[in-house]
Parts: sequence; structure tokens; C-alpha cells
Amino acid sequence: MTQPTHEDAASPVDVISELIAQLGADVVTLPDAFGSRSFADWSGVPSALPRALIRPRSTAEIARAMAICQRHRQPVVTQGGLTGLAGGACLCGGEVALSLERMNTIESLNTVSGTMTVQTGTPLQTVQEAALAAGWFFPLDLGARGSCTIGGNLATNAGGNRVIRYGMMRDQVLAVEAVCADGAVIGELQPMIKNNSGYDIKNLLIGSEGTLAVMTRAVLRLRPRPRSVATAWCGLADYAAVTRLLTVAQAELPAGVSAFEVMWPGYYDFVLDRLPALRAPLEERHAFYVLLESTGGDAARHAEDFENVLARLLEDGTVANAAIASNERDALAFWAIRDAPGEYPKLIPGMVAFDISFSIAQIGEVAQRCEAALKTRWPDCVALVYGHLGDGNLHVVVHRPELSKETAREIETLVYDLTREYNGSVSAEHGIGLKKRDVLGHTRKPEHVRSMRAIKAALDPCNILNPHKLFKPD
Amino acid sequence: MTQPTHEDAASPVDVISELIAQLGADVVTLPDAFGSRSFADWSGVPSALPRALIRPRSTAEIARAMAICQRHRQPVVTQGGLTGLAGGACLCGGEVALSLERMNTIESLNTVSGTMTVQTGTPLQTVQEAALAAGWFFPLDLGARGSCTIGGNLATNAGGNRVIRYGMMRDQVLAVEAVCADGAVIGELQPMIKNNSGYDIKNLLIGSEGTLAVMTRAVLRLRPRPRSVATAWCGLADYAAVTRLLTVAQAELPAGVSAFEVMWPGYYDFVLDRLPALRAPLEERHAFYVLLESTGGDAARHAEDFENVLARLLEDGTVANAAIASNERDALAFWAIRDAPGEYPKLIPGMVAFDISFSIAQIGEVAQRCEAALKTRWPDCVALVYGHLGDGNLHVVVHRPELSKETAREIETLVYDLTREYNGSVSAEHGIGLKKRDVLGHTRKPEHVRSMRAIKAALDPCNILNPHKLFKPD
Repeated sequence: MTQPTHEDAASPVDVISELIAQLGADVVTLPDAFGSRSFADWSGVPSALPRALIRPRSTAEIARAMAICQRHRQPVVTQGGLTGLAGGACLCGGEVALSLERMNTIESLNTVSGTMTVQTGTPLQTVQEAALAAGWFFPLDLGARGSCTIGGNLATNAGGNRVIRYGMMRDQVLAVEAVCADGAVIGELQPMIKNNSGYDIKNLLIGSEGTLAVMTRAVLRLRPRPRSVATAWCGLADYAAVTRLLTVAQAELPAGVSAFEVMWPGYYDFVLDRLPALRAPLEERHAFYVLLESTGGDAARHAEDFENVLARLLEDGTVANAAIASNERDALAFWAIRDAPGEYPKLIPGMVAFDISFSIAQIGEVAQRCEAALKTRWPDCVALVYGHLGDGNLHVVVHRPELSKETAREIETLVYDLTREYNGSVSAEHGIGLKKRDVLGHTRKPEHVRSMRAIKAALDPCNILNPHKLFKPD
Repeated sequence: MTQPTHEDAASPVDVISELIAQLGADVVTLPDAFGSRSFADWSGVPSALPRALIRPRSTAEIARAMAICQRHRQPVVTQGGLTGLAGGACLCGGEVALSLERMNTIESLNTVSGTMTVQTGTPLQTVQEAALAAGWFFPLDLGARGSCTIGGNLATNAGGNRVIRYGMMRDQVLAVEAVCADGAVIGELQPMIKNNSGYDIKNLLIGSEGTLAVMTRAVLRLRPRPRSVATAWCGLADYAAVTRLLTVAQAELPAGVSAFEVMWPGYYDFVLDRLPALRAPLEERHAFYVLLESTGGDAARHAEDFENVLARLLEDGTVANAAIASNERDALAFWAIRDAPGEYPKLIPGMVAFDISFSIAQIGEVAQRCEAALKTRWPDCVALVYGHLGDGNLHVVVHRPELSKETAREIETLVYDLTREYNGSVSAEHGIGLKKRDVLGHTRKPEHVRSMRAIKAALDPCNILNPHKLFKPD
């Protein structure tokens, strides 16, 4: 990276004037023209207004904007669909906002290679639909699909429900083009699975939450479109049965498992009780509920395989009871129970939510201890526990009447201390952003964080790319 | 990283003496005791002898050794099984060699989570066998499995035959512990698939060929053990048929494709002609040969699915002719044709070999142009073309009688220039090392290489970790 000299910094022209002069008033919007535009993401973290909003139409324009900003030491926050949950796209004051909203074109789709080259402002759902229309499949999927962008998915290494089969966002990407802090464009849009040519800067940028470079274009990897789906709702008696179901289903279903969502009874009872539209798939209550999904080839053969595996697991007692979806409506009804967190803002506004991960073998114990500790400390609290178990990802949501800021902080301390005790991660899939900076050290040792800071200083020596995020100030 | 001061560097005690004093004569071997030990890898690049050989027994010993070496500005080359093909483990003169051979223990294997924690000096085959013995599967596989180590697999991001289904080495790793140039230990051995907590230093170290840190331990991800395998040898009339076979097989075989090895007729005729142990699977000749493999669940159902898909492809003309292996012996006979390159040293000693990659859609054209250009320039040359087509990985091997160094360089220029023209990679899976430093720029732009160098300087400020590798000297 070019290390700027002191002379560079003492530029006499104001950065905003220079941005307008170089990029035009159509690209650079000033605060008086923001209207009602919001700059906050879905995290609940408040956001300041930017000094200006930059909306470039090309990588070249972004490169020019970054070169100007670095010369003026002007901090830049890159923004996509603003659906992040860690405050990574929020503004702390004094920044310019760089929105990729005009870079929303699918540039090419190769049906032979199964690859798609996109500008990173493209919404996820647009990519999913284009893949399907071409006979292929883009597997990343999350609730925010209509609003979130490929750039945001890259910046946070987004996860979602299909990680167990297809991996996270980084597993869907063959190449990334990015603009560095000094305006240099790096990354080659090479559409190959194998490319061992020096450091894997692509994977370094993915998940770096806008702090190392502005990702501008990407080559995505498409997958064969699944031709059938089988879904079951299972009730189980203990955690050992849950992990056994996971192991057997992964080994014996020909195409493995495409979702393995576990819900603890506290969660199940709460959402069934509060949301009248939900139907109980099984009559009786169980210690654990698993939504099991497998995607496959020929529908009839796949259904047979799915039923055979479940029948054996019912027979040997691993699964206490199960309901297999006989049509899409059934499957949607099962998923509605798992997707109930979409209703949280109405049911439990102001809840404290966690996105943590552990080894699969330990999740049962962690969840039990976590719920017990919360209930002991706050007997009137609601503690909802569920997660993508195959990935070790646990979501815990805590609420109590008249939840004060102090109590929220106490709840966080309790859950994050337990996360540290079990060598877990304070962020499985949402990222660190502003919200979890203070607990990064629960998951990463000081030496490790020092290496991260050394990389940040090497690639962004003036600290203008999304400053204040990821790390606590020195 | 700690930036050492000048005072540190002017240490009065010799580095070797201090290493012996701190680590003991059992850990530090001097040249007079090297005996016949070789320090060169399989690349053919000549290697100097080290000033000393360090063989630590723990991460803590490696940390102490690195701290001493950094204080003395003593270059260090980390060595594993010495099976690399790019010269990444060779010595240029003046280094100490750090062998991980005593760190060869499997520390734990969790059969519930499907994870294994290993020291990185453990041979790949030991890991494969331990996984199988526990009812699981470690999918990475390459010819050097008995000698190569997990550390070398990590340093080069090894590939092999199963990448199409399971990915490269980086896809088999959940966490890495490493010692930095200054002796700091980074990385947490957290066994989770999801861990979005700051920069992905793990993936930065994987594939960095010993230039950023010494990887000491890793948490590996195990997969369900496949219960059946189906293999076919296919003859096809043109490249469009090859890509159609790939697309259909990936989409319609329930568990997808586990190997898709393509051989061009020049390769096929050459190895069948020279190696009398090989049998032709099909009587007639074809324009392309594909070894298609799929692993799956229930053997009988899997065999049915495999035959049904192939029957449809024979019927619609995609596949001209095919032989399905009816037992393991048949399958081994098919694989023997693909594994013939193991006999190259006897058949064509001194050949020039390439490991390049392209978009799948373009490989047919690239291969044709490459072979034609070689034959035009050197009508008496042998040009063998084959590869892992599903990953875009092409191997080209060129030989001619009395091959001089100058001709070898001309052949390299021809093939690498073509690689650049098609936006390909000069290293698909073997790495850059010493052998391909001069052509890194064919695949990576100057701005990109500058970012790599900035990362190197940030994590190894004294340039003591495997210097001279990856980049040309300034």
C-alpha cells in the first residue's frame, strides 16, 4: 500500500469539494439533499449522518473517490443493504458514506462453468433468481435476501440456513475485485476453484466488515439446482439423540443434510403460544425439536431414501416421533416455527440477542447451563434457545419486562463469559462491527488481535476504512 | 507484530549457540551430524544445507526458537514431508531448517462433532487412517499421502482428486494455531464451522508457503464416511460433450461427483503405449476420455442411480461409449491410467510440467491451442494434457529428446503466456515457491502483489520466514 507523506495530507482544497469536482454532483450528495434517507443498519445501533453520500457507478469512480479520501484522511463507511446486525455499517460521525447501490448489475453468467460475475451492490435475491432462471442455484439464503447485497454478504461472510450443506458466503465466491484505501484496484476476476498464487487476499477481505478495502465485483460459484426437497419435524428425548440424528442423517442420506435446525422447548412453547398461526407438528412435547431437511435428485427416490433413514431412526429410538412433510404446505408450516424470530420485534421488543458458536459436542451442555443461569438470576425472563446445530451456531434471545440498559449489559456479561468458558465464538455469523468490539477478546487472544491490527495497518495505513469497527480504540 | 529495535539485532551471542543453549542439543542438530539427510523437496530445485536443523517437540519450543531467530535476523525455512513441487521448502543458503517431524501426534478426535486436533507434522495418511478407524472420513488425498504432512498440506493449500466434491485443504480446516516471526502464538483451536470474529487469519496462513508464520496445530473437519463408490470410464466426441457430462452428472447423481478426470488423446495414447500394465477400458479411440466417480450411500441404490444417469447420457449422445466398473479391480484399472504420471520420472525424465487453471468453459480451447503451439514449435515433442476438469485445473507435461535448459525456458514462456492470455492461474494447486516466482505477475496484477508484500512486511517485518519464496527480490 502507498504510505502517504505528510505533504499529501496538507491539501488546501476541502475533501468534499474535491469529491464533487472529480466525480460530479450526481455522484456526491450533500446532507441538505439527504431527505429522509436513513444511514443506520438493522442492529439497533444509532448512526450519525455522513458529511456526504457518494454513489459511484463503477470501480474506477470508487478508486478515484478512495484516492481523494485517503489524501485528505477522510474516513469512509461502505454501505450495502443496511441489514447488518452488528452495527458494522453505522456511522460514528465525520465519515462519508459510500453506497454501492448503483453498482447493481449482473455482468455475466456462464452456464457451462456455473459462474456469475456481479457488481457487489446487487441484492442477494436478484442473484438467486438469475441463477435459477439459468438452470443453476445460488445457495446462500437469509431472511434479508430482498434488501441485503452481495457486498454486505461478502463483508460479513454471511451464513444462514444452508451452511451445513453449502458453506458460508466465502464458499460461494471464486474471486473478488476490491479498491484499497489508496485507490489501488486489487483482485483478478478469475473464475477458477483452484488458484494457489500467493496469499489468499480474497478470504482476508471476506468477513473484514469494510475495514480493509471496498469490494466492488465478485465471481460467484453456482451449484446444480436441487430437484427435490424432503422435510421432517422430529421430536427427541435428549441431546445425545440430537447429535446421533445429525451424524446418521449426514452419513446415510445420499445428498446429506441441507438444514438441521434445533429448537429447545422454551423456544418452541413460547412461539407456539404467542403466534396463533403456527401449528404444532407433533401432538406431544419433547426435550428437543429438529427441523431436518435434505435436498436431492429424483423426487420419488429421494422421498424413499428420506423415509427409510427416518424409519430406522424411529425404530432404534433415536427419534421419539417425527412428521414428514407430505407437500410444500407442510414444509412451510414447519419452517414457520423456525422462522418465528421474524416476529420478535412485535413480541419482545428490546430483547438481547446472541449469535454464538461452540463445538457440536458441547452445545447441549452450554445451552442448558446458559438457560439455567439466566432463569436463576432473572426468574421472570424469557430465554429462547435455537440454532443451526450442524454448524455449531446457537442463537439465544433473552427478554424480561422493563429491560433496562444495565440489565441488558448484565445479560451480555453472563452469556459472553459462558461463551469464553467453553472456548466458543462471540460471533458465529453476524460479525463484530460496533456491537461486539468489547468482547472480541473473549474469542481471540491478544496476540491474535495484534496480528489483525498489523494487517489493518498494512492495508489501511491512515485508518480511513470503516474506522472504530472491529477493534476497540487503542 | 513486535517491530524489533536495532539494539536487539546487535546481540553478541551467536544465534546457533543461543538456540542450543535454550532448546538443547537434542533439538538443534549441527551440519556435522546431518549424515545423508536431504533438505530438498520433490520439485527438482536444488537446496543448500542449513546452518542448523531444529526439531522441536512443542509449540512452546517453536515459539522460543522463532523469538531467538528474529532477534538475530536468522532466516528460517519450515519443512514438512518435503514432497512439494514448487521448491517452497528448499533452502537458498544461510537459513536454519525447522522440521516439524517430532510434532506428529493426533491430540484428539471427537466422534460427535466430527473434528480432529492434530500437530502439523502428522503425515496425511495417518490422519486419513485415524478418521476411518473412528468411522469418519478425511477427504484430502494426493499421491504423496504417506510422506506429506498436514503442515505442508496447509502451507500449500493442497488439492488432489477430490476437490470437486470436498474442496481443497482450506475447506478441511476449522482452526489453525501458528507461531509468528517474533514467537507470538496466534490462532485459537476452536472447532466450529462458523466463527466470524475478525479477519480470517486462518485462511491467510493457509497457502502462504511458510512465509507468514509456522503453523503448529490444526483442528480438521471430518466428513461422513462414504459407503459406496461408482466409477465409469467414458469416451466422448468433443469438449461440449465433456462439459455437458460434468453438468448433468453433478446435477443428477444424488451425491454429485467425487472425481471428474479428463484425459486428452495424446496423453491416453502415450501412457497406454508405454505402460504395458495398463488396459484400454474401451476398444475404440475417442476425442476425450473422462474418469467419472461418485461416492454415495446404500451401494445397490447408488449403483442404480449411477447406471440410470449414464444410460440417459449414452442415449442422448452426450457420451459416445462408457464402461462402468463392476468391481474394485475395474475401478483400480481405470485409476491406473489416470495415475500414470507417477511413472513419468522413468518415462520422460527432465520433462517440463505445468499446473495451471482456467474457467471450465475455456479449457477445451486452451488445451487445443497449447498442444498445437507446442507441436508447431517442436514437432518432435511429447505434450501430455489431462486434469481435474471440474476444478478448472489442467496439467500439461512437455518432453522432447535432449531437452536443454533454454528449450525448457522457451516451453515455459509459451505455456505461461497462453495462461496469461486466458486470464488463468500459473499455479492451480502446487503453489509458487521458488519455481514460479517469475510468473506470479502473469496471474496477479502489480497492485495485488503490492498488497501481498504489505501483508508479508506486517507479519514478518524482518523477512526471516522462508525468504526468497513467492516474490522476486525487490
